[in-house]
Amino acid sequence: MPVTAPAPRTQFQTHPSRYKHWRLACDGEVATLTMAVQPSASERPGYELKLNSYDLAVDVELADAAARLVFEHPEVRCVVLTGALERVFCAGANIGMLATSTHAFKVNFCKYTNETRLALEDASASGSKRFLAALNGTASGGGYELALACDRILLVDDRSSAVSFPELPLLGVLPGTGGLTRVADKRKVRKDRADVFASVAEGIKGKRALEWNLVDALAPLSRWKEEVAVHAAELARGAEPRTGKPVELRFLECEREEDRWKYAYVQVALEREARTAHLTLRLPGEAGPRDAAAARAAGSGWWIFQLFRELDDALLHLRFHEPELGLVLVRVEGAPAVALATDAVLATGDDWFVREVAHFVKRVLKRLENTARSFYAVADRGTAFAGTFLELALACDRTYVLRDSDARVELGASGVHTGLYPMANGLTRLETRFLAEPERTTRVLEHAGRAFDAATADELGLATFAPDALDWEDELRLAVEERASFSPDALTGMEQNVRTAGPETLETKIFGRLSAWQNWIFQRPNAVGEKGALKCYGTPLRPEFDYRRT
Amino acid sequence: MPVTAPAPRTQFQTHPSRYKHWRLACDGEVATLTMAVQPSASERPGYELKLNSYDLAVDVELADAAARLVFEHPEVRCVVLTGALERVFCAGANIGMLATSTHAFKVNFCKYTNETRLALEDASASGSKRFLAALNGTASGGGYELALACDRILLVDDRSSAVSFPELPLLGVLPGTGGLTRVADKRKVRKDRADVFASVAEGIKGKRALEWNLVDALAPLSRWKEEVAVHAAELARGAEPRTGKPVELRFLECEREEDRWKYAYVQVALEREARTAHLTLRLPGEAGPRDAAAARAAGSGWWIFQLFRELDDALLHLRFHEPELGLVLVRVEGAPAVALATDAVLATGDDWFVREVAHFVKRVLKRLENTARSFYAVADRGTAFAGTFLELALACDRTYVLRDSDARVELGASGVHTGLYPMANGLTRLETRFLAEPERTTRVLEHAGRAFDAATADELGLATFAPDALDWEDELRLAVEERASFSPDALTGMEQNVRTAGPETLETKIFGRLSAWQNWIFQRPNAVGEKGALKCYGTPLRPEFDYRRT
Repeated sequence: MPVTAPAPRTQFQTHPSRYKHWRLACDGEVATLTMAVQPSASERPGYELKLNSYDLAVDVELADAAARLVFEHPEVRCVVLTGALERVFCAGANIGMLATSTHAFKVNFCKYTNETRLALEDASASGSKRFLAALNGTASGGGYELALACDRILLVDDRSSAVSFPELPLLGVLPGTGGLTRVADKRKVRKDRADVFASVAEGIKGKRALEWNLVDALAPLSRWKEEVAVHAAELARGAEPRTGKPVELRFLECEREEDRWKYAYVQVALEREARTAHLTLRLPGEAGPRDAAAARAAGSGWWIFQLFRELDDALLHLRFHEPELGLVLVRVEGAPAVALATDAVLATGDDWFVREVAHFVKRVLKRLENTARSFYAVADRGTAFAGTFLELALACDRTYVLRDSDARVELGASGVHTGLYPMANGLTRLETRFLAEPERTTRVLEHAGRAFDAATADELGLATFAPDALDWEDELRLAVEERASFSPDALTGMEQNVRTAGPETLETKIFGRLSAWQNWIFQRPNAVGEKGALKCYGTPLRPEFDYRRT
Repeated sequence: MPVTAPAPRTQFQTHPSRYKHWRLACDGEVATLTMAVQPSASERPGYELKLNSYDLAVDVELADAAARLVFEHPEVRCVVLTGALERVFCAGANIGMLATSTHAFKVNFCKYTNETRLALEDASASGSKRFLAALNGTASGGGYELALACDRILLVDDRSSAVSFPELPLLGVLPGTGGLTRVADKRKVRKDRADVFASVAEGIKGKRALEWNLVDALAPLSRWKEEVAVHAAELARGAEPRTGKPVELRFLECEREEDRWKYAYVQVALEREARTAHLTLRLPGEAGPRDAAAARAAGSGWWIFQLFRELDDALLHLRFHEPELGLVLVRVEGAPAVALATDAVLATGDDWFVREVAHFVKRVLKRLENTARSFYAVADRGTAFAGTFLELALACDRTYVLRDSDARVELGASGVHTGLYPMANGLTRLETRFLAEPERTTRVLEHAGRAFDAATADELGLATFAPDALDWEDELRLAVEERASFSPDALTGMEQNVRTAGPETLETKIFGRLSAWQNWIFQRPNAVGEKGALKCYGTPLRPEFDYRRT
């Protein structure tokens, strides 16, 4: 098996009709999502997806199902996640896949699966759905981590089924999808028990799993179906009832050439020599829907929704398929008024569809902030970083604003800045930016609903640099060249540490702390060396460790 | 230069009379600690400590000075940190030293320097001293990080002196001593400015440094001394006035043999084959001082103070000099009543000496929690895990309690659990342990002032496992063998993630997040490979990066 098999070109769009690994069945208020991974249908050759173990393509289907449940099945209030195999719910991420992946792929894979789990929790927090993990057999590693992302975990009590984290004892790594954080912080398992749990390869079952709060309930095999139904019905009552027509998520067309990806609203131009990508969002000429009903009628064709779905797809392709493009220059072209008019609809909040679009935008902004690339927002002639798009600029590492009285360079603020798109730290982007000077947040909000010029933007503290026309090109060029010359690893670490100041949450802990340790361990010889645990697993070899603790 | 020069056997005890790199001068309420690093007096051959750059021995002196200022100079209310060189305050950690150190040493070095900075902040928070960084020249990297740990930063305004983080642009790593966290979270610098600051090797000076909140004040060279005095006097007013005799910190004697270290109250026995250290604390037969006056008369000979100073020293020696001993079995021998009687004195809090001893104990407990080793508290025959020592058990990863009615196995609780020794997360150890069941904290506190038997300890939720006499030996042996067999890296990552659940603070961010990224970057080829930035710095070679972002 090659050590660093090239990653396949993953497609992040799919549809239930094409699922290979999941079955989605809706029955009134309850949907059942059954994991039935096809062992032979791995994303690339070299490993078999036995025992409901998964690779990226399996998770892409899960992410697709989660999104479709929200938009296409508003009547569903509880989603039951269960498995189609006997005695095993899910064995977690496939070890053969991990052992033959590059470090970068492993890190990106874990990040993506984390985002999928957080999307489930987000759907629960927003009142859209509740999730029941109906563990009909053992849930190991990533299998148990998926359960941890659910609102309730029901484990079959059959004397053999357990929940487990075999990563440390068997593979010499950590659970890579937020498991330790959720055990310690979400389920608040006592630290000595968390320690024991993370050390016992066979896991913990039955009464002890319940006593240690690793699961919420047990059910014998003889009453399994009934108990699942009871719990699902109970959970369903915690989600809001939603009516109105479902909104179909249409396929996003993209002309994808070697160095240019062209979606309807999003374009990516890749300047490979300069290791720089130009990401340009073009607003439509007219704002379109002026109220929730019109927005819902437009459905996934509502421009703001489509644009952010395209942006999401583009970010994933950049992450997985263009690792060398370290710097992304983000531009928004159009009229600020178009963005501001649409923000007025987004902020209404009394229609579930509109609210879900806002939740989706929120998650895409977070996806950007969790992308290990540098982002510079570039506001020059004809820019439209207003409202939702000002949030995008605030999500970037820096903002360059052209200060030229001869050019129309307008930014703008709207009601979305007061909490429609909270960051992972729970604060708004303005609050985080102006942690030291909260009065500045107020001052920006006084401009809500209006566009303002470059000088005002600079004065409000929204520009990192605001060069005049004379200096603009040189300053930007130098900033780009400089960024592209730096150590990519140091940039990743630096950005992770300054992007989210302020309070920590489950989410910031997962990406800021747990992932960092995992990244570190993932490249230590004890895991990935020739005699490392990850390499030896499933072979007759036993790992050999360098036992020096660091 | 060898790539992995063996670490010298560092001594963590020193005395101002032996300082090579710092000058300590006390003048009434203000002390001045002047950095004057001797270039040729490096801890090991192979690098020169130019421009006030530092290695571990320099920081050991700083830590010593900080401790002595608290205990031996109670009258001092403001400590001015400044440099003896012209135009340069401090150039940070020595690059030659870093480039020729093992990964493990680099990580331990950063952890120790972080703890020293946090000790300064702790002295400020406790009201003991305020700290003024009087930057008489450029403060780079670790030099600026030292300033960031102070209450106020005064920078000379001479058109050339700057504060800077050259790590990312020049070395391909991150500031390793909490710098990014303090810039983002303590000084709340806007994230785009933090990003720019971390990218500009030459740093930021004068008005911009002030505007960006990187420093608190500027002073021209012509008025430097006067301005330093003014700021120092102002800061001094923020610390409490303390009277009474100073307490001298005496040298701790230790018989240090190959496999056994014998202090007065602390013993360490190293079982190398089993990769296990036995750390045994022996309480005295009598509690001794029953009030603050008696405690102060005993000074650094007060047993609880001496014991924790010895424990601190032992932990440092384990970290730096015994990397393969991955598991530490912690025992406390003596009478719980002795610990409880001393806790009654510690909890009084109206005498600065007693309070400072408690702060010291607090920091040693945190030092243990930041040590990348597994700790099992073992409570068997004759144990005395009571009060302060119960805190020690709670700081360990697991607690094994022998449940045998024929043996005296008593633990105990005291008033110290309500907040005398907060963890890095700001909570007490009981609150953190019982995050899911806060009523359990109350139940333990109901036993304050009393010893209780093993069965009660188990019932209260203080034991991880409580085997009976029949199972005791086997269970403990298996637990030890198992732990010693695991990947040391995975253990480090797991422990870091489960030891401090709950809220995050500057401190948990530094150790949990920033350090993790730094560890990761510190072993990437882009930093430490033959063409990595850390390797090439100071040579004619230019680094060559693998530009794939991860």
